[in-house]
Amino acid sequence: MHRYRSHTCGALRASDIDQQVRLSGWCHRIRDHGGVLFIDLRDHYGMTQCVADPDSPAFKQLEQVRSEWVIRVDGKVRRRPGGTENAELPTGEIEIYVTEAEVLGPAAELPMPVFGDQEYPEDIRLRYRFLDLRRDKLHANIMRRGEVIDSLRRRMKEQHFFEFQTPVLTASSPEGARDFLVPSRLHPGKFYALPQAPQQFKQLIMIAGFDRYFQIAPCFRDEDARADRSPGEFYQLDIEMSFVTQEDVFQAVEPVLRGVFEEFGEGKPVTPTFPRIPYKEAMLKYGSDKPDLRNPLIIADVSALFSRDEVSFKAFKSLVAGGGVVRAIPAPGAAAQPRSFFDKLNDWARGEGAPGLGYIVFEADGSGLAGKGPIAKFIPAEVLAEIAAAAGVKAGDAVFFAAGEAGKAASLAGKARQRVGEELGLVDTERFELCWITDFPMYEWSEDEKKIDFSHNPFSMPNFPLDDFLALDAADKDTILAINAFQYDIVCNGIELSSGAIRNHRPDVMRKAFAIAGYGEDVLEAKFGGMLRALTYGAPPHGGIAPGVDRIVMLLCGEQNLREVVLFPMNQRAEDLLMGAPAEVTPKQLRELHIRLNLPEK
Amino acid sequence: MHRYRSHTCGALRASDIDQQVRLSGWCHRIRDHGGVLFIDLRDHYGMTQCVADPDSPAFKQLEQVRSEWVIRVDGKVRRRPGGTENAELPTGEIEIYVTEAEVLGPAAELPMPVFGDQEYPEDIRLRYRFLDLRRDKLHANIMRRGEVIDSLRRRMKEQHFFEFQTPVLTASSPEGARDFLVPSRLHPGKFYALPQAPQQFKQLIMIAGFDRYFQIAPCFRDEDARADRSPGEFYQLDIEMSFVTQEDVFQAVEPVLRGVFEEFGEGKPVTPTFPRIPYKEAMLKYGSDKPDLRNPLIIADVSALFSRDEVSFKAFKSLVAGGGVVRAIPAPGAAAQPRSFFDKLNDWARGEGAPGLGYIVFEADGSGLAGKGPIAKFIPAEVLAEIAAAAGVKAGDAVFFAAGEAGKAASLAGKARQRVGEELGLVDTERFELCWITDFPMYEWSEDEKKIDFSHNPFSMPNFPLDDFLALDAADKDTILAINAFQYDIVCNGIELSSGAIRNHRPDVMRKAFAIAGYGEDVLEAKFGGMLRALTYGAPPHGGIAPGVDRIVMLLCGEQNLREVVLFPMNQRAEDLLMGAPAEVTPKQLRELHIRLNLPEK
Repeated sequence: MHRYRSHTCGALRASDIDQQVRLSGWCHRIRDHGGVLFIDLRDHYGMTQCVADPDSPAFKQLEQVRSEWVIRVDGKVRRRPGGTENAELPTGEIEIYVTEAEVLGPAAELPMPVFGDQEYPEDIRLRYRFLDLRRDKLHANIMRRGEVIDSLRRRMKEQHFFEFQTPVLTASSPEGARDFLVPSRLHPGKFYALPQAPQQFKQLIMIAGFDRYFQIAPCFRDEDARADRSPGEFYQLDIEMSFVTQEDVFQAVEPVLRGVFEEFGEGKPVTPTFPRIPYKEAMLKYGSDKPDLRNPLIIADVSALFSRDEVSFKAFKSLVAGGGVVRAIPAPGAAAQPRSFFDKLNDWARGEGAPGLGYIVFEADGSGLAGKGPIAKFIPAEVLAEIAAAAGVKAGDAVFFAAGEAGKAASLAGKARQRVGEELGLVDTERFELCWITDFPMYEWSEDEKKIDFSHNPFSMPNFPLDDFLALDAADKDTILAINAFQYDIVCNGIELSSGAIRNHRPDVMRKAFAIAGYGEDVLEAKFGGMLRALTYGAPPHGGIAPGVDRIVMLLCGEQNLREVVLFPMNQRAEDLLMGAPAEVTPKQLRELHIRLNLPEK
Repeated sequence: MHRYRSHTCGALRASDIDQQVRLSGWCHRIRDHGGVLFIDLRDHYGMTQCVADPDSPAFKQLEQVRSEWVIRVDGKVRRRPGGTENAELPTGEIEIYVTEAEVLGPAAELPMPVFGDQEYPEDIRLRYRFLDLRRDKLHANIMRRGEVIDSLRRRMKEQHFFEFQTPVLTASSPEGARDFLVPSRLHPGKFYALPQAPQQFKQLIMIAGFDRYFQIAPCFRDEDARADRSPGEFYQLDIEMSFVTQEDVFQAVEPVLRGVFEEFGEGKPVTPTFPRIPYKEAMLKYGSDKPDLRNPLIIADVSALFSRDEVSFKAFKSLVAGGGVVRAIPAPGAAAQPRSFFDKLNDWARGEGAPGLGYIVFEADGSGLAGKGPIAKFIPAEVLAEIAAAAGVKAGDAVFFAAGEAGKAASLAGKARQRVGEELGLVDTERFELCWITDFPMYEWSEDEKKIDFSHNPFSMPNFPLDDFLALDAADKDTILAINAFQYDIVCNGIELSSGAIRNHRPDVMRKAFAIAGYGEDVLEAKFGGMLRALTYGAPPHGGIAPGVDRIVMLLCGEQNLREVVLFPMNQRAEDLLMGAPAEVTPKQLRELHIRLNLPEK
């Protein structure tokens, strides 16, 4: 018989009754029922009930055993007594009558239990991560993570992508977040940087002619942590393709993402065809470029209605006259809500820095609509009807208004949409709604600097005839500000999974793009010199995307925090409490790396 | 039709003749045959011959095209004229008559060509890696690497291993090589370390109950480069299993490795069952714990023969009397070699720091053997016969001797065995010979410190009854020095692919192991504190191994240097010439990381 086990703790069934077996595992739960010991023995594969009474030669040994001790038991499989079967356990029909036992790994008093669902403070959970990982939910999340990654990989290969490994010790990249640096021992005063993303390497792989790249790529950003952003490192499904248009990227990536959400979504519906929403439309209808489409509410622009002569609501009227906008957020059925519902939303809007959140409640008035609320009296019935029509509401509903400068109003409307949707219980959390956001503007007007600047990613290809682009003049301000880039986001349930783009693979177009934004060749050279040189030796058109693996797993596990889907995460302060990182190092190590400490004064 | 291609450059066949197609790719080779242009258009998938004559509307455009320009061509597939087919090319029956062309990415004058097999200096190749990677052999190596990794992953999953990701930003580990350090922004004066291997994490994964772990794991060591060791980073197939003996590890890993060598070895034979060679035996028979078993020569110990009264060769005699050894390396057929063969080996041995390499050439003498050479006359015929028998040689063969202190003699004999095997053409390079080296001694006697010390890995489980081990006394020196560890190496063709071990999972045994080597608990705590604590909360017996992925791929690609199988390697000076790493950073970055430079004086 094997030294440690003939079966795992999840293997035995009624068909194994009377077999002599050997199991090893952790003592999950130990009960003493009138002098008979019951031990639920647990391993990765399951749980098996082990029994010893005082007649067993192993009884004395097992009496000493405590929770989470690792033991080996030998014994005979027998049917559980009638009425004590456990239908929820695959091994629930049987138990082992233990005749021999061996302690393989005793456990000291536990700082947190493994058995049970009790909540524990985060620092204890991270410091004793190896115990926390034994608990059902976290153990299952981590295994689910592995399955999701396997599935992503399989689906990428089915789409004929090849997997590559790019360097971790590399140069600073122009992604814009803060780099982690690694001092060089051989080159005094110089540093490697950990990649914020393999962006330049994947473009080089295309320039080297490999055609379709992917990688489950570790990425590193020295940014402060958030629930949906790990401090330090995270993984992305990094993708790049040659000789493609934006449409090809969508066609390649959409089935991969839809596939994993369908495979692991536990039956929740997944968007069958991802809608493509131009950035401007997203900002108008959802007040966000990360719209949560589980929320059915759609924002309407009602600016023009408020500038009508017959409307006397001065606050909005003068605001529109000054170039501002008024956005209407529908609130179906809100007429039935108490006054406190409206007050709470108003208070919330003030907390967001807005003067408040005006509203109109619509009631039936004969065959028409009457408006109630503080604003309604300033608006004649026919305009009220037009507002209701624009917002798609009817009697019994309400409309909230977000007003102000276009960008701020859109953002406030977006947040109000989310809040109203949640308060009214309109957001169906039991589904995955994915969409593409497209047509991001290439440039924007910088009020601060009074100049044209890049709006998002300077390295994307403009969606504009390239010869005409090269001929643009700085005076063509309106034309320039209307240019969109071949840049896109993929969003799921209001969470941005990734940005992507068709890259600017033409050095001449790249130089022009930077010149339009007022940057000289020196800036381009400093930020992107290596890549620019590579592009001059025969570069194919290419593009890609890089959906966040941790975020996808988080969505699929129904978790709110990335730490629930990462094996050994750091805490919010970027500390590894288990291994004790970061830590002090020796003076010799510092000398070898040609650095010394420069500590802040106490 | 698609914007860039209807087919790849490897797709078209005779069955496509008369189709209107669109291809995109790189201009591999451009020839002008009497005013007709022939362009071999290349992409990742293959090569297609494209033709344009002056009647083609694309001719003028194509006349400007140069090597490695990226172009799109439209045209009709036609059969190549009789006699110009290329049977070596899958597309060799057809060509495209081009009627439209578009330059997608022009190329500047190339610093090195892609077409052709010309050798180029390493620094050019690394600086223009994206060009080098377009070349056949390197391109194929990198794709082969991906296939090997896919195969390793598939085979591990077939053996029911699960894949996990362990952190890259972590704490210094006790592997013993030099760490790469990452200064912490949030914790002034503290540093993360990049993992030399995920050794502690994989053990924690076992302690967390995940049972069978693997990872294609990036590892980082700040060591100087060698051909078979990348500077900076490398990948290992990191493996760990719970509730296993050494035998289980062998049974799990051997089919995975044999499988990839068989799958990618291009028909070269692979050891069907890996022999298990105890360390002591390996040092005796092969003079190495990394024996190249493609070499049939086996070293014999002939020390006792030289101490016989009737032998008068004083150098060896007194050496053996003083505790030294004499090892015999057979040289089959060497009698036919010229005197220079023996002189060259003698010179080589002196270069290795030995006094020389004595030898005897055996000739037939009636029914017996006669010896020739400088030593032979001191050895009577019957002892000569015994030496020949011990070394397994006969008339026409020779024997070389490596003599000295046991360790040095073994090492010299091992190198001589390799040299003699190669010089005599006995090493069959067309095969993969794998073996396990087992039973490494746990401790050794340190002459310098006059104390017992660890021989290899202090964290392996001793192969000794644990209760007896706990009862050992420092006075039991001979017993202690005879203890082996459950530690093993896997070797292929003389290259160590990995060390592995059954881990010491018992804190009490660990403390004892360190105490025996004279280390207090403080040393253990400092080197291994986090792990030691984890082991006290219920640890399963576990063990593993971590074969080097890059080395496996190097062997399978028949390359001598890891840089030929790594996508973006650093040079020998740990520089990334393409991206310009390491590089200087800004004073602001240094300030944020609480460090300043400490440059050596010029």
